[in-house]
Amino acid sequence: MKHSYITLQVALGERSYPIYIGAQLPAEPLLLQHLSGRQVLIVTNTTVAPLYLVRYQEALKDYHVASCLLPDGEVHKDLTHLNLIFDALMQARFNRDCTVIALGGGVVGDMAGFAAASFQRGVNFIQIPTTLLAQVDSSVGGKTGINHALGKNMIGAFKQPSAVLADISHLNTLPARELSAGLAEVIKYALLCDAEFLTWLEINMPKLLAQEPEALMYAVERCCQHKARIVAADEHEQGARALLNLGHTFGHAIETHMGYGQWLHGEAVAVGMLQAADLSYRLGWLSLADVARVRAILQQANLPVDPPAMSADEFKSLMLQDKKVLAGQLRLILLKRLGEAVIVKGVDDTDLTATLTQRHFGVLA
Amino acid sequence: MKHSYITLQVALGERSYPIYIGAQLPAEPLLLQHLSGRQVLIVTNTTVAPLYLVRYQEALKDYHVASCLLPDGEVHKDLTHLNLIFDALMQARFNRDCTVIALGGGVVGDMAGFAAASFQRGVNFIQIPTTLLAQVDSSVGGKTGINHALGKNMIGAFKQPSAVLADISHLNTLPARELSAGLAEVIKYALLCDAEFLTWLEINMPKLLAQEPEALMYAVERCCQHKARIVAADEHEQGARALLNLGHTFGHAIETHMGYGQWLHGEAVAVGMLQAADLSYRLGWLSLADVARVRAILQQANLPVDPPAMSADEFKSLMLQDKKVLAGQLRLILLKRLGEAVIVKGVDDTDLTATLTQRHFGVLA
Repeated sequence: MKHSYITLQVALGERSYPIYIGAQLPAEPLLLQHLSGRQVLIVTNTTVAPLYLVRYQEALKDYHVASCLLPDGEVHKDLTHLNLIFDALMQARFNRDCTVIALGGGVVGDMAGFAAASFQRGVNFIQIPTTLLAQVDSSVGGKTGINHALGKNMIGAFKQPSAVLADISHLNTLPARELSAGLAEVIKYALLCDAEFLTWLEINMPKLLAQEPEALMYAVERCCQHKARIVAADEHEQGARALLNLGHTFGHAIETHMGYGQWLHGEAVAVGMLQAADLSYRLGWLSLADVARVRAILQQANLPVDPPAMSADEFKSLMLQDKKVLAGQLRLILLKRLGEAVIVKGVDDTDLTATLTQRHFGVLA
Repeated sequence: MKHSYITLQVALGERSYPIYIGAQLPAEPLLLQHLSGRQVLIVTNTTVAPLYLVRYQEALKDYHVASCLLPDGEVHKDLTHLNLIFDALMQARFNRDCTVIALGGGVVGDMAGFAAASFQRGVNFIQIPTTLLAQVDSSVGGKTGINHALGKNMIGAFKQPSAVLADISHLNTLPARELSAGLAEVIKYALLCDAEFLTWLEINMPKLLAQEPEALMYAVERCCQHKARIVAADEHEQGARALLNLGHTFGHAIETHMGYGQWLHGEAVAVGMLQAADLSYRLGWLSLADVARVRAILQQANLPVDPPAMSADEFKSLMLQDKKVLAGQLRLILLKRLGEAVIVKGVDDTDLTATLTQRHFGVLA
């Protein structure tokens, strides 16, 4: 299947852009046609660089190419490391017509994207996601940013890329734990808007874990279709885009409390989705069997299903810092049924506390 | 003239906003009607805070108000001090429906604006400029950002405020050197698009230096009218907005070379405008008498008119990092005549070098 790929379009008017999905995506024309000037900065990390940096440097040999290698991991997604990207751009003497390429996972994409949004008040940006999580979720839609010590993704910008190259051959080198973390976001799409896909995942999870290309390709494509549709309808998260945060308000609290990088983002989201399902059960929307089904698919993907040792108050304190909080009121993404998420404000505190103190989900308390 | 004010509109579609200009502008309704939620962070500096912070805290006594005091001066317009604003927002546990108010000069406005653009990917922002420079120029138009060690204003965002309150009574406390620095930007508008205003300035400069309210009010209004018109036509500086950078490519080089804060921004722009006028003379557009006239109005405003000791190569190296450089080519704002600026690319290097080595302007070499 070399050089066969599909193209999805994220329809955002003059900010519209293609997502290319395939194995061994050709740099010519897919990458080169989206460059603006002659100057290119490749932002990557110390794990990805030895695997794929040379390949892209060679594809760009006719350009003025600089690179910036960040340390790997969520713990480095901060202002100090963001400045390394600005240093690289300034030291290379790049101008407003340069291009920033993110070659890596979600952390690299978030940081390179925010740098591209801010350098000279905005330069061209291209995403080459190398993890499953980045391919199905974080590389599409323009959310970029860094963490603050007191809260995740608190500082950033909406910066749409001019193209996303999701090359599933890059997943060959992905560690099993990272693959599972990406599968959490895949499962998220099924739970929030695609019950049929949930059934497909229950059948095909072994193929995904075995990294069969056809299965991965199908999953990436289906997730990106959902992401592109939802982002096109609500670019700046005034409404329905918030549904994509299923499991994230709980999950971000886990990540912040445990220290960035202790739990992978996808792992925290997995438990967060189970908490959302549990709360939906308490509101009478899901059955206990539904919650057990959510638990089972997460377990199939080798994801954690039990929360860390955190009190309800610790959860609530961090959750109240969530970006969806308005006028001091928590807004949560819950499930009306499997395959249909809704935004809920003013959740009863007794129900929330019950969920936050629950240690095992999908079983009778 | 208490509580009398005029309103100008910056026409930017859904991002349109008013500029209120007057003395003792009433917080109710002018300020309060532009707040979004109940949470307000006032960003100011250690010089302005003792003068005006309490007044605004009292006007906002029914809100949850926090404040962030930055050290005064361009040398602190960096990532480290930007993070102090994020710290204040996070420590106050502010949400996406908060408002950031910039109470201060250009540095405070640039930093608070960039923080408002980036906190939770964008929150409400109001400018209360307290210097002449900020009132006539930097508070209007949405350019925000910070300096990099290697270049001025290299990191930032376009972030339009929801309102600008230009209270000329705040200028009463402005040091003479800061007043003059602001007059450089006032003179800039005259040179780039308003020859009639240049004549007015030549007559009324003594009144401006004496801080006569009617004269200041007129100057602020006339400059803001020009700024609002130019920004409305070209928000993101794809074209004509670049004309507002008259003197700035030269001036930024002086600021960066001398160390931020050694020369005030307006002082560097003053000399930069003279260099632009000198180069325009070499291109046959201005007469030597025109250049002398530019020199004279700057001297009337007590601004420097001779460049610091910098070689042509030192100038060029820094100028090539300018945000208007495209494809490695310098683009300069020059004067076709007094009152008409143009964007010029590909300036002859001999002419440029001659201007950069000129020590006194408007006199025969």
